[in-house]
Amino acid sequence: MISRRTFVGGLSAAVFTRFQDTAPRVDAAKLRQRIEALSVFGRPAGGAFADGVSRTAYSDADVEGRRYVMAEMKAAGLQPRIDPAGNIFARRDGREPALPPILFGSHIDSVPGGGNFDGDLGSLSALGALDALAAAGVRTRHPLEMVVWAHEESYAFGRGLACSRIVAGDFTPADLDEVWNGFRRADAIRKIGGNPERIAEARRDKGSHHCYLELHIEQGGTLERARVPVGVVQGIVAIDRYDATITGVANHAGTTPIAERHDAMLAAAHLTVAVREAVIRSPGRQVGTVGHIDVTPNSPNVIPGLVHLSVELRDLDSQKLAAIMDDIRARSREIAASTQTTIEFKTMARAEAATAAAEVQGAIERAATSLRLESSRLPSGAGHDAQMMARLGPMGMIFVPSVGGVSHSPKELTHWQDCANGADVLLRAVLEMDHVD
Amino acid sequence: MISRRTFVGGLSAAVFTRFQDTAPRVDAAKLRQRIEALSVFGRPAGGAFADGVSRTAYSDADVEGRRYVMAEMKAAGLQPRIDPAGNIFARRDGREPALPPILFGSHIDSVPGGGNFDGDLGSLSALGALDALAAAGVRTRHPLEMVVWAHEESYAFGRGLACSRIVAGDFTPADLDEVWNGFRRADAIRKIGGNPERIAEARRDKGSHHCYLELHIEQGGTLERARVPVGVVQGIVAIDRYDATITGVANHAGTTPIAERHDAMLAAAHLTVAVREAVIRSPGRQVGTVGHIDVTPNSPNVIPGLVHLSVELRDLDSQKLAAIMDDIRARSREIAASTQTTIEFKTMARAEAATAAAEVQGAIERAATSLRLESSRLPSGAGHDAQMMARLGPMGMIFVPSVGGVSHSPKELTHWQDCANGADVLLRAVLEMDHVD
Repeated sequence: MISRRTFVGGLSAAVFTRFQDTAPRVDAAKLRQRIEALSVFGRPAGGAFADGVSRTAYSDADVEGRRYVMAEMKAAGLQPRIDPAGNIFARRDGREPALPPILFGSHIDSVPGGGNFDGDLGSLSALGALDALAAAGVRTRHPLEMVVWAHEESYAFGRGLACSRIVAGDFTPADLDEVWNGFRRADAIRKIGGNPERIAEARRDKGSHHCYLELHIEQGGTLERARVPVGVVQGIVAIDRYDATITGVANHAGTTPIAERHDAMLAAAHLTVAVREAVIRSPGRQVGTVGHIDVTPNSPNVIPGLVHLSVELRDLDSQKLAAIMDDIRARSREIAASTQTTIEFKTMARAEAATAAAEVQGAIERAATSLRLESSRLPSGAGHDAQMMARLGPMGMIFVPSVGGVSHSPKELTHWQDCANGADVLLRAVLEMDHVD
Repeated sequence: MISRRTFVGGLSAAVFTRFQDTAPRVDAAKLRQRIEALSVFGRPAGGAFADGVSRTAYSDADVEGRRYVMAEMKAAGLQPRIDPAGNIFARRDGREPALPPILFGSHIDSVPGGGNFDGDLGSLSALGALDALAAAGVRTRHPLEMVVWAHEESYAFGRGLACSRIVAGDFTPADLDEVWNGFRRADAIRKIGGNPERIAEARRDKGSHHCYLELHIEQGGTLERARVPVGVVQGIVAIDRYDATITGVANHAGTTPIAERHDAMLAAAHLTVAVREAVIRSPGRQVGTVGHIDVTPNSPNVIPGLVHLSVELRDLDSQKLAAIMDDIRARSREIAASTQTTIEFKTMARAEAATAAAEVQGAIERAATSLRLESSRLPSGAGHDAQMMARLGPMGMIFVPSVGGVSHSPKELTHWQDCANGADVLLRAVLEMDHVD
């Protein structure tokens, strides 16, 4: 049964026409085999697939994993090339050479101690989709372009989305001189086959692609709990990150009466509770986290004199984040007064929200429906290269369920059926978008 | 004017008789000169007196400082000897050799980055008191015994009151094998002139001294705020120290909805507030501190999955501490339920309260009154060697004001007049106790 939703878009008849039972499908067994083959690059010594992967950007494992994927691309008849930023691209011609390409893909680098689905699924499903079209002899109107982004995770150089960022033009030559763990950024890019001397040529123009699509695991538990196999991403949330500096007076925990204390830890505790309260005050999917705390002197018998803590807020709506932060600031003034401390906030990072284009969301929904898969719209709380591509043109993302919502962990898992579903939705969303002008 | 209090004790006539204007007084200039001379051992390179001292137990500076004090003792006609535990003792005969000695003194080791009054004042005032009696030709009934305790601060080997603890018999031979910073305890004791092979001989019996007296800076701000120059210590508080283990689930700060979180940091914040609330629920001088926190993974973009924090409670009344802890445990169960975490407490340390003997408190009060100095009773929130001596006989402590309540800091300061007052109160309290049987 096709759900009622299919008939809303006005293109429902086309959907039925386009996707017969003989319509191309991604080879699920091949997809699994490739994910498993890729998993050995960065696998813990003596470990198995379930032990996850540490394939951090620019590591030897990353270089080997990229080599494996490029070999698979060549075997599939593609001609992979590495752009000056280190991203891997491959193109398949369309029927109308004047049209801009449909770009799709993901990344294959991981966090230390990560899982085998984050990025890998989207990258290898992109290859699977091109395989499927080749096997079915389908030629699209638009050229198709697959991409494997380099350095997506925010581990190396302390910041992620690094090479899609270069493509989006958010880069200056001075960034090449950045040093991390004794490793210069230019050398890191050179190690993975990029060309730092020609880095400016990695930049692409607005409108240079028809749209960007990315399949990814959800990394949260919303789809699994709702028992919905396909998520249609509404956008990638804005992230505001602050450092709160709480200054009290370090003093003897035995000789300082309660009334005379300037206890920075107590103030930090009240502030942590205040962050939660400010976040839940209004309805919605916004989140706020105190994940990092640094206490001085951090000794059981000394009243803490100084605390740094992180406040991170995320939502699709930046205005809502600003209102929450206003709440937190107001409450922090009361906390500072009652604890005889001072509290100051410094903005550490601010990432704008990236909205998925309505037409791409619609295409993904129709693709899911054509496969008789229920879908649901949700925001992405995590950052993705798709948010960089949203700066250049229409963007959309497909989510598939993460078991237990676990990610950035060896325990990260997405059932193979969900992987196959996601790859098919990606393929059909590409075909849908091929018919949207 | 003598305050009304003087006439309460029934010994007021004796006070007036004993302390004429010609009664012995500690040489204040000499006391200051000795404190300043001692301050050079462990002084920061190129620093001055106000830059404090790092004369940690068993350091070269400690050895040099001890050598200086023993030289001063010898110059004063005393015969200092080091007991097997490393403590320095010196005796002055009394008129009645059968009587047990009156023991008094303090320590000269410091915390790293400490001040020049903590311990030094009490040690050098003890010497000053013996000087004064010699100069005045006063012979007491009881023998007098001055002591400079070794290793009082809880820095070396992570625990203080180490060598008075040996004298009190709280020691096993295995403790000699303890290693800290690559330094074996036996070798540490040997370095300062102790004799680990004969350590058991350092132990003294209950009743082996008439009483123990110690002058010390308050290390809190109670006396200064009340503008009272002399504190009569009621006792040294009991200390209960716990480690709380809060277990949640580490997860992505972007993709995990608020309702699905098991946020160990949020639970830690509520618990920290609960500790404060439980402490202030009842009136009194009890204190409670969360001074140490350890968060895993401690990253701004990850919900903390595990937090350890310290809970330290202090009061003269152990029962009160137990009741406060019951309150905290009850509240922690609510917190665990509301934050979807678990909270477990482990007892890390428990120090019994040590009560100052009523007769010694009375003697100190009379001594202060005879000097026309106002005094006030207060607990000691910090630990002192006196609590070990309380196990062997009547104990009492004299506090003098700490400017701003600051201690364990180069900024530690007690005005010279307050130092001189304290030394005189010590001397007269010794003389008072000489007449208490």
